[in-house]
Amino acid sequence: MKSFDVAVWRDGKLRMLDQRKLPHEEVYLEYDSAAATARGIRDMVVRGAPAIGCATAFGVAVEARRIAAQDIPASWPAAMAPGLKALHDSRPTAVNLRWALERMTPLLTSTAPERVPDRLLEEAQAILREDHASCQAMGHHGAAVLPQVDGRPLTIMTHCNAGALATGGVFGTALGVIRGAVVAGRRIRVISCETRPFLQGARLTAWELLQDGIDTTLITDNMAGHLMGKGLIDVVVVGADRVAANGDAANKIGTYTHAVLARRHNIPFMVAAPLSTIDLQAPDGSHIPIEERPAMEVTHLGGQRVAADGVAVLNPAFDVTPAELITWFACERGVVREPNRDKIAALLP
Amino acid sequence: MKSFDVAVWRDGKLRMLDQRKLPHEEVYLEYDSAAATARGIRDMVVRGAPAIGCATAFGVAVEARRIAAQDIPASWPAAMAPGLKALHDSRPTAVNLRWALERMTPLLTSTAPERVPDRLLEEAQAILREDHASCQAMGHHGAAVLPQVDGRPLTIMTHCNAGALATGGVFGTALGVIRGAVVAGRRIRVISCETRPFLQGARLTAWELLQDGIDTTLITDNMAGHLMGKGLIDVVVVGADRVAANGDAANKIGTYTHAVLARRHNIPFMVAAPLSTIDLQAPDGSHIPIEERPAMEVTHLGGQRVAADGVAVLNPAFDVTPAELITWFACERGVVREPNRDKIAALLP
Repeated sequence: MKSFDVAVWRDGKLRMLDQRKLPHEEVYLEYDSAAATARGIRDMVVRGAPAIGCATAFGVAVEARRIAAQDIPASWPAAMAPGLKALHDSRPTAVNLRWALERMTPLLTSTAPERVPDRLLEEAQAILREDHASCQAMGHHGAAVLPQVDGRPLTIMTHCNAGALATGGVFGTALGVIRGAVVAGRRIRVISCETRPFLQGARLTAWELLQDGIDTTLITDNMAGHLMGKGLIDVVVVGADRVAANGDAANKIGTYTHAVLARRHNIPFMVAAPLSTIDLQAPDGSHIPIEERPAMEVTHLGGQRVAADGVAVLNPAFDVTPAELITWFACERGVVREPNRDKIAALLP
Repeated sequence: MKSFDVAVWRDGKLRMLDQRKLPHEEVYLEYDSAAATARGIRDMVVRGAPAIGCATAFGVAVEARRIAAQDIPASWPAAMAPGLKALHDSRPTAVNLRWALERMTPLLTSTAPERVPDRLLEEAQAILREDHASCQAMGHHGAAVLPQVDGRPLTIMTHCNAGALATGGVFGTALGVIRGAVVAGRRIRVISCETRPFLQGARLTAWELLQDGIDTTLITDNMAGHLMGKGLIDVVVVGADRVAANGDAANKIGTYTHAVLARRHNIPFMVAAPLSTIDLQAPDGSHIPIEERPAMEVTHLGGQRVAADGVAVLNPAFDVTPAELITWFACERGVVREPNRDKIAALLP
């Protein structure tokens, strides 16, 4: 399976594949401060909750290196505060961003001042390595519970891109489950929903799966119900940007609709996400902030206006799927059937 | 309310607004044969079931005029056969096409041969006039049953374009109901789903409603579930391309998904279509042919490729909403609650 430089350390800088340019161009951008990294996250150079977590960790590391290049500061927390705030405020829904900051920040005070830049980089590298291992474990666990079908490929529908490109560049979460099934020798056919407005399904999921030779068919998001009604979808597998304490899962806009459709057609619905996506501070999905993104993402495509002039626009980037519509929650520790508050709590250390 | 030259007779030819160019350019094309008209229908210069019915009728009229310009044929049915077949085969789902042919064809034999061209044109003009009256009646009837809300505008979600542009250029079907409500003094807010892949909602519905000063907000199709979950949609109103004898309704791909979502959220779901859309030969929705359109409509936008190279594509242009998900069927004769076989039969003469 191919891997990607989603967010990696290269020559003392954070290097990220510019996902806005895919699938047409493979362009890599370099970041040497937290503020620049925060802009990259906000502008969706990198996207996908676990990938944002990795980029945030490297953004913290590169900021410390930038500061130390002048002098070791009297107070690391004070010197880092503006950069940490810029990262924290870059995007509101993916909790992995906050999780990465909470993991990096204590090192500013628990480490000898001159060791801080190296220690932060070690931690960011550890987060990236753990993400790779987590995606592969999740892929294995998730694949093991996928339905059996006879004499034909198992057809898995997915939404947005919860792939290698949405994580540390290896396997992915939802696409990790698909890759886990392929590795286990299953015949798989993927239906990729294009995922308006940003077209992550058409641009990213199709691109990365085809590179691994996985049979992939593109549909517009509004075709899912029709295909389910025709019996053409065996299971739905998606990622998550934040999972509340009761198992409600925020994910790319449109996910909730697919979950409602899956329930009507008795199709199992799997959410695959690492434990770092779980937010125990959110008792349920209503406490997850939903980012509203610029109208131009809806009215324009490739810089070209498609919608009538003067029309108002709503552009919520995520929605919440209630736990009751989720058949399985797959993570690096295993698969939970019909997630709820107790089962989610039991997954955490 | 503004009207549009969707399909009109002008200087001995059929003139149609090229809807593929909207909202950027208002270009009118002229047709002087049935074959050319059939290509215009296939290529979606004109679209929308009632509009296709009007265009078909004028396509028959213009074909007779073309033939008579050389000589009155020995057999009108024989002379017209290739043109009628081209029209018949242009698009498979909208039954108004077949309905218009069935209304025009008997005139070839029941009329004195030299009178045929004039008689066909009279009939086409009658079809257009009846469409205008039908949309206005349907709009009035449909508007009368819309829910009452206090202290805020009634929010109506619609899908695709079932407007003046989808009919004879006046009022429309689903948008006719919206216009009927506006005419009746109701405060209305419209949520227009963009309707991938052809973007009829973004390009056409927004364009025509804004010209009438109706408050219109654009969303991507996959946002509907999220908005319904937030309580932001009061009612869904859509058109239909073919209604089966039991009330199952084929309409633009994505409609079925909206109906499933509406049921989950206890939101009433209205289908507005003229009686010419009812096909008693289709006992239920499974007998309605669903057109599969070219992959390029999904992979490209404005001539520009958006999807990853080499990905397979499905592009069904319609889906079927079962009658059990339809709260009201509105037509020119009135509104039927919870349509079924008996209630649909009772609507027809």
